[in-house]
Amino acid sequence: MAKDLISRKENYSQWYNELVMKADLAENSDVRGCMVIKPYGYSIWEKMQAALDKMFKDTGHVNAYFPLFIPKSFFSKEASHVEGFAKECAVVTHYRLKQNAEGKIVVDENAKLEEELIVRPTSETIIWNTYRNWIHSYRDLPLLINQWANVVRWEMRTRLFLRTAEFLWQEGHTAHATKEEAIVETRKMLDVYAEFAEKWLAIPVIKGVKTESERFAGAIDTYCIEGLMQDGKALQCGTSHFLGQNFAKAFDVKFTAKDGKQDFVWATSWGVSTRLMGALVMAHSDDNGLVLPPKLAPIQVVIVPIYKSDEEFEKVNNKAIIIKNKLLEKGISVKYDNRDTHKPGWKFAEYELKGVPVRVAIGPRDVDNSTYEVARRDTLEKKIYTEDNVIESIVALLDDIQENIYKKALKYRNENIHIVNNYDEFKNIINSETGGFVSAHWDGTAETEAKIKEETKATIRCIPFESNSESGVCVYSGKPSKQRVLFAKAY
Amino acid sequence: MAKDLISRKENYSQWYNELVMKADLAENSDVRGCMVIKPYGYSIWEKMQAALDKMFKDTGHVNAYFPLFIPKSFFSKEASHVEGFAKECAVVTHYRLKQNAEGKIVVDENAKLEEELIVRPTSETIIWNTYRNWIHSYRDLPLLINQWANVVRWEMRTRLFLRTAEFLWQEGHTAHATKEEAIVETRKMLDVYAEFAEKWLAIPVIKGVKTESERFAGAIDTYCIEGLMQDGKALQCGTSHFLGQNFAKAFDVKFTAKDGKQDFVWATSWGVSTRLMGALVMAHSDDNGLVLPPKLAPIQVVIVPIYKSDEEFEKVNNKAIIIKNKLLEKGISVKYDNRDTHKPGWKFAEYELKGVPVRVAIGPRDVDNSTYEVARRDTLEKKIYTEDNVIESIVALLDDIQENIYKKALKYRNENIHIVNNYDEFKNIINSETGGFVSAHWDGTAETEAKIKEETKATIRCIPFESNSESGVCVYSGKPSKQRVLFAKAY
Repeated sequence: MAKDLISRKENYSQWYNELVMKADLAENSDVRGCMVIKPYGYSIWEKMQAALDKMFKDTGHVNAYFPLFIPKSFFSKEASHVEGFAKECAVVTHYRLKQNAEGKIVVDENAKLEEELIVRPTSETIIWNTYRNWIHSYRDLPLLINQWANVVRWEMRTRLFLRTAEFLWQEGHTAHATKEEAIVETRKMLDVYAEFAEKWLAIPVIKGVKTESERFAGAIDTYCIEGLMQDGKALQCGTSHFLGQNFAKAFDVKFTAKDGKQDFVWATSWGVSTRLMGALVMAHSDDNGLVLPPKLAPIQVVIVPIYKSDEEFEKVNNKAIIIKNKLLEKGISVKYDNRDTHKPGWKFAEYELKGVPVRVAIGPRDVDNSTYEVARRDTLEKKIYTEDNVIESIVALLDDIQENIYKKALKYRNENIHIVNNYDEFKNIINSETGGFVSAHWDGTAETEAKIKEETKATIRCIPFESNSESGVCVYSGKPSKQRVLFAKAY
Repeated sequence: MAKDLISRKENYSQWYNELVMKADLAENSDVRGCMVIKPYGYSIWEKMQAALDKMFKDTGHVNAYFPLFIPKSFFSKEASHVEGFAKECAVVTHYRLKQNAEGKIVVDENAKLEEELIVRPTSETIIWNTYRNWIHSYRDLPLLINQWANVVRWEMRTRLFLRTAEFLWQEGHTAHATKEEAIVETRKMLDVYAEFAEKWLAIPVIKGVKTESERFAGAIDTYCIEGLMQDGKALQCGTSHFLGQNFAKAFDVKFTAKDGKQDFVWATSWGVSTRLMGALVMAHSDDNGLVLPPKLAPIQVVIVPIYKSDEEFEKVNNKAIIIKNKLLEKGISVKYDNRDTHKPGWKFAEYELKGVPVRVAIGPRDVDNSTYEVARRDTLEKKIYTEDNVIESIVALLDDIQENIYKKALKYRNENIHIVNNYDEFKNIINSETGGFVSAHWDGTAETEAKIKEETKATIRCIPFESNSESGVCVYSGKPSKQRVLFAKAY
């Protein structure tokens, strides 16, 4: 099976699509732009959810659930918000079907809604409309709420996980008494995302702030984490928005402060989505299939028995069951694939395709010699482990793989941040096959940003938090610049 | 706060609505028929989800995710299915908004969908359309998939948790090679639901099969579990459907059997929803507020310090922190409410309203005497616990409360199954204030069922699995009957 995969070099985009489908992560549905997340893919998403949910709760947040539908009038209350989302909205206009005279099922025109409902593309408006009744005094603040939900944005060109009309995500929506506290929250949640990306997804990310033109519709500031995929394109892995008092003003959410004065409430929102599934695939996988970080792998260790006769199977089977149980006791997720319908070679290829981090093969000779053949997915190296410390070695190997995947991605990322001082060099790198981030001076205007985008397809991914505020001149306009920003082509 | 609650006797329906809102479980949103599930309510739902999800996985099921939208043509393929759901569908007809000449946000008529999309009221059609590509041979079977999702049914009269336009649920959709296997699965999942209802919700349920008129649209048979609420009305707590080959035929899903013959695939589907939140409230709570079974309580133990001076507080505080940590070590969810903004009496009422199973109060004298005042929410009894075995006693008390709530509900339920042999008696009981189940003979016709419903508002909740097939005569028509069925007014 794995043999069917096109190589990254030949066609990265096709490699990605094939891999997502062949590894049983997801597929396109017959509903325009909507995907089906298959069980294997969904089990990775469940692991992401569990890790993130714990991080949110550890930072004081609670979950709640708000309506799928947003009345058009709510949606329109924050001007830049509606402008940002109006062009990609699924709109519910009727609430009934009927059978017509020819027996066909049609929309019942008598069941037209007085006011159209928007299927939420994000929930700021419906949530701030609700918060108006929940917040009266400083005692009601901060309000630290998260929602796990599906959202819909009517994208014209869709791609599995990366850009789909419907996707799954979490959206945090917090309310604060002061501007400072809201900014601290915005930054705190970006740090949570960065930690998740690095420790779980094993993707190094750069934290920074978006330019005005890349900002969330309705935000004062959008912070983001940006990762680099193996084809040299950037991928935004999460965003955290400081919303100021914009939504509080639009929905009239005021509170009485300790000193008795009334003021509008300060807001943040932050989200990551099933897009992270795409990032995970693109950041680590190879021409043999998925490479999954052990912490997110649905199966961490697969055991494959090698045998030619029933007698050999029995011998090998006993040993396999013993090690399986010992690994399970350590909390490791193990699959023992003892199917006799498939040959070991087929199984090896299959679990490589599926990205199972560790494979243990056991043949009759391993029984005689008290050994195991252990292969790691990230490097495809094989080693012989001995009985005395096999369990400890596998536990350590899983940690090592998690770390190695991260280090490899970090090395690649660091090697592909190009410091550039003129526009020719800029274009050379952006248009090269290897791409990557370009760190260059920019004059701070939306005009220059737009022209660079038009000419090169590169966008400003972020103004990094961690950078010396070295001054210089804009690579495009030659005008003065206060600091370098990061450009890249992006997903 | 709790004092504000109307009593069940005065107005059960109002008591329910007030309690759901005052205990911070949920509230009506400004979107017609849609609710907001508040953090306290959502945390109970999360506990339900976790328990059910584990039970599904333990019985071999995996999770996946299918599109929110269903093209109208798919939806129409199974005739009785579309007939059942057509009247309550949210229909998406457009995919863009725009600003009109007057600057108002309106639906962009140029962005009309070629084919309308239905917001899923249930997912059989989109899932069976997908299964067609997943199932080819008996080797692909069984397919045991569950989905956690939101669904929309445009109900005209809505009620928090019990009947809302949007609700959260899980829907299992399984595919099998034989009719027998599918029926076993249908029954197995009903048993899972019954076990969950009894062991977690502490609600005794009666398992049975629905009559034809109460059957799921598209099913051959619908099995259900029925609980009895404190006002004598029944509430359907979960359903499991044997779908036969109806959806396989509608979506042309065939498989090649071991013997090489082709056949349509056999299907089941089964679901429970946030309706269970309503059942939980109605089954156990009292005029002081919620009574939550400890297994689903977000806070299992609350500790309230009692003191008059700073000195007393310090004394009490130390003792409170020690017991809090000891309880946490036992895996018990504890809240230590040391706020000085509220008096103990207020806190007592508040946690009674919220249904916290165990309250521990600690005053200065408790420090001197090495005692704790422990109150249980279900019976409102107070007892003095001594230092030497307080932790073990609280652990045991939580188990005892779980059991006691169930036993109380079981006793009430059993006392309210009325065996009735004539229609006058039937009407007397159904129309009485105490209501309950009526076990009566029925002639098996939809006509009689409809007439009884029309005259008394009672419906056949189920034909119970466990009943002796005693023959008799129908209470309504006097025609022969093979077994008693259960009638009740229902939510």
